[in-house]
Amino acid sequence: MGAPEPPGSRRPGGRTARNRAAVVEATLAELARHGYPGLTVENVAERSGVHKTTVYRRWGGVDGLIVDALDAAGEDDWPAPVTGSWETDLRAVAYEVVDTFTDPERAAVPSAVVHAAFHSERAATALHGFLAGRHSRAADAIARGALPGSVDAAAVVRSVTAPLYCRLFITGERVNRDVADQAVAAAVAAVRAGVYG
Amino acid sequence: MGAPEPPGSRRPGGRTARNRAAVVEATLAELARHGYPGLTVENVAERSGVHKTTVYRRWGGVDGLIVDALDAAGEDDWPAPVTGSWETDLRAVAYEVVDTFTDPERAAVPSAVVHAAFHSERAATALHGFLAGRHSRAADAIARGALPGSVDAAAVVRSVTAPLYCRLFITGERVNRDVADQAVAAAVAAVRAGVYG
Repeated sequence: MGAPEPPGSRRPGGRTARNRAAVVEATLAELARHGYPGLTVENVAERSGVHKTTVYRRWGGVDGLIVDALDAAGEDDWPAPVTGSWETDLRAVAYEVVDTFTDPERAAVPSAVVHAAFHSERAATALHGFLAGRHSRAADAIARGALPGSVDAAAVVRSVTAPLYCRLFITGERVNRDVADQAVAAAVAAVRAGVYG
Repeated sequence: MGAPEPPGSRRPGGRTARNRAAVVEATLAELARHGYPGLTVENVAERSGVHKTTVYRRWGGVDGLIVDALDAAGEDDWPAPVTGSWETDLRAVAYEVVDTFTDPERAAVPSAVVHAAFHSERAATALHGFLAGRHSRAADAIARGALPGSVDAAAVVRSVTAPLYCRLFITGERVNRDVADQAVAAAVAAVRAGVYG
């Protein structure tokens, strides 16, 4: 089987782009509604109005749908928080994770994607790329917020998100703004102690 | 359907206990070999020498097997590292996580269990209990290692393991002893700054 044509590679703004947008939107909606185990090409085709054979031909299957939805999400204009200080930027990043994952409606899609990554190498690779992009944008933001230039900004961002993701997806412990505040305080202490360069 | 009889609850040392030990061992061996998606009652029955109908009756199915294997693992005599100082205890905990998950043979079972927790609420609850037990033993150990009494030892342990688990299971980034050292250094800086009480 040949590699599928990269979605959206033809006639930007034409039917190909419209189909991709509709399929990505339908994939996210289906993930939000049924989670990863309930995602099917049939349902995405029906919801998007794109013919099932087109979805199979261009996306290959469920994994391809998730990969493309993550790629599309990574191309968005998510603004990393810019508050003027790297410490409050970090807090804003941490709060955004907490607020997203404690709201069942907002949590549905990202949770389903993490779930998918456990099933599929391709989904995992796409998730890793998506998170690396988010971390990198947040790192750029805190680096502009007067973080000392020698500090590894990406490591600082990861040190704040890791305790939250670990609780959410591994240990099943609660997350809330207090947990986020503690993660930020720990990151700030570590930066001041020179742990991140 | 009634609740299954708690495994091992009858005649300790007798056939019930022997069956449980054989089934737990077979469950772990099957998880190591085939991962969570390949775990079946049939294979566990065959490997353990316990009749399939007995396995179904007492463990209910794949989820029950994983839950009991985790319960059994939590009853073990895992010794939290006791090195004489809380900082080197912490480093030993972090290195144990790194060494386990960078050795494919040792990583197979715990990785399969984390995978299972994404599929099954019961497996997730059992995993959360298992990790809480491990964290609590490690916290007791570092508390004896001259960690100031006011410090939340469990929070310190979690702050060291979280960056490792997050890389392993969420962001797909490498773990190694350098990453562990950085996590320990960050935890030590946070303790000194009073972040954990």
